[in-house]
Amino acid sequence: MMDLIRSDVRDIVRALDRADFKGKIALVTGGAGFLGSWLCDVLIELGARVYCVDNFASGRWENISHLASEENFVFIEHDVSKPLEIKEKLDYIFHFASRASPFEFEHYPLEIIDANTLGTRNMLELARKNDARFIFASTSEIYGQPDVVPTPETYWGYVNPIGIRSCYDESKRLGETITMAYHRQYGVDVRIVRIFNTYGPRMRADGVYGRVVPRFISQALNREPITVFGDGSQTRSFCYVTDLITGVLKFAVLENGNGEVVNLGNPREVSILELAHIIKKLTNSDSPIEFHPLPPDDPPRRCPDISKAQKLLNWKPKVELEEGLKKTIEWYKGEI
Amino acid sequence: MMDLIRSDVRDIVRALDRADFKGKIALVTGGAGFLGSWLCDVLIELGARVYCVDNFASGRWENISHLASEENFVFIEHDVSKPLEIKEKLDYIFHFASRASPFEFEHYPLEIIDANTLGTRNMLELARKNDARFIFASTSEIYGQPDVVPTPETYWGYVNPIGIRSCYDESKRLGETITMAYHRQYGVDVRIVRIFNTYGPRMRADGVYGRVVPRFISQALNREPITVFGDGSQTRSFCYVTDLITGVLKFAVLENGNGEVVNLGNPREVSILELAHIIKKLTNSDSPIEFHPLPPDDPPRRCPDISKAQKLLNWKPKVELEEGLKKTIEWYKGEI
Repeated sequence: MMDLIRSDVRDIVRALDRADFKGKIALVTGGAGFLGSWLCDVLIELGARVYCVDNFASGRWENISHLASEENFVFIEHDVSKPLEIKEKLDYIFHFASRASPFEFEHYPLEIIDANTLGTRNMLELARKNDARFIFASTSEIYGQPDVVPTPETYWGYVNPIGIRSCYDESKRLGETITMAYHRQYGVDVRIVRIFNTYGPRMRADGVYGRVVPRFISQALNREPITVFGDGSQTRSFCYVTDLITGVLKFAVLENGNGEVVNLGNPREVSILELAHIIKKLTNSDSPIEFHPLPPDDPPRRCPDISKAQKLLNWKPKVELEEGLKKTIEWYKGEI
Repeated sequence: MMDLIRSDVRDIVRALDRADFKGKIALVTGGAGFLGSWLCDVLIELGARVYCVDNFASGRWENISHLASEENFVFIEHDVSKPLEIKEKLDYIFHFASRASPFEFEHYPLEIIDANTLGTRNMLELARKNDARFIFASTSEIYGQPDVVPTPETYWGYVNPIGIRSCYDESKRLGETITMAYHRQYGVDVRIVRIFNTYGPRMRADGVYGRVVPRFISQALNREPITVFGDGSQTRSFCYVTDLITGVLKFAVLENGNGEVVNLGNPREVSILELAHIIKKLTNSDSPIEFHPLPPDDPPRRCPDISKAQKLLNWKPKVELEEGLKKTIEWYKGEI
């Protein structure tokens, strides 16, 4: 299934300016994870030198094994909550390390907090020493249960600080705070990207504990029941990975991006039940839909206001949900 | 002016049960600070053994020097963002270390973040090893600019994650998150107290950069202009220190307090301008009132809903604002 990814990587590369990346040195934390591995692929394709850092807490070697033979690809197995030094001078640091599946929040709260606070601190320290640009992968989860949907960057968030999800939501919020503190104290060039739900090849399926898109796809393909939490009326907006990665890299090289915060995601809002039906149809599956209790503090709506990204980056998602899902289903067919 | 404090300490002691504290070993971080030093005084008076930990970032030796000769008082100069070991078995850990003046947020953001995140982590680790009860000093600032005033514990907060104040607000929020993570993961007995504005003897005046009550008092006593930020219509509710400390210690020994979060503060809401006039009157001062620009993200209203504390702890503030201010003014007259 590498052909599919290779063609998607080429699509991303076409939307960018090779001159911004060629010969540059980038470090990607969480580089063996879903988004991190796409970043590595694209950066290598653009002619950058890539340090990929991962401790395999949730990343997988298979996501990057094809890059191992690349001259410009260096893999470092490392936990970002410990300081890191790199002998070459870095130009970009993409801090994408963190478990992100709600099912992991209950079991690894302290590890998640570490990746987003100590990890962010350590990578900012590295950025400061290298005079490198720092791109922090924040999340729509910092908005919690927003009053304003679609949610703009100016909304401050309504998050439960002591709930089960708080290890993720609050540590990403503090990750943003630390990022801005380094920007203000030390003048580090920082960019914060608030990433809304993204899907595509390489997102882990993980059975019933996976993120919703890969879970529904693998359940549909295996003719198992599709597990919907709550009544499925809660909404999400799903961005195909190529659109997201294009936005992240456009933001990373933006001339006036220093100190900015940008939402990236697809503004089409769909209910979880609607998503289940779309995936059933695309997989031609007769899986029944099963309803399970909603976990605590599950956000009822999630949809980005992307007007800032459209204006700053001249960017908007191009891949329709059905088109992105078809590709993703193809990829999982090869995997399962 | 120690007579005033001594008499106040005896008032607090009368409201508590000596049997809960006598012979117990307590550690107080930020023990040389405003609230921490009052805790040390009362705990010593109750017959507890006290480890007082402070790095003098904002604490002062004068606040605790009178305790140095006490057999049961041990002072440790230590930065809580570094791990700490104590040779005796601890019963209570009061984590009260953190700069708390908005004027410091701009200059010490990373230090504040460390005290509330690494510091909280280190003290929870100590609580876990000692099977000690952990009391976290959180703050009304975790509510940010709340939609609901008076604000109950169930309100999640509306906080700017990337503003100048965020180093304090967000790190206190994550402090709560880490506290609950230790409670859930390791079964540590934890109690979170959200402290609303408190004032009284030992709060630092610090000239124009001090907290509002000591700043107004010292300006009024010195016949200098009283500096009001904004138009003074923003509200706060001010709790005299004896009431606050009584509430904290009642909560610390509460049988069913494990895993609970409680607001402590005085529910009387006054505007900053009203406070200026009260203090002018009580000090018989002819200081003019000067209006300065409001700092960013200054909360327009702050008032606790204390029904939970009333029910759980059979507690409510007893000291009227004018009475508490009179004592505080007496104390500052001795200091200035």
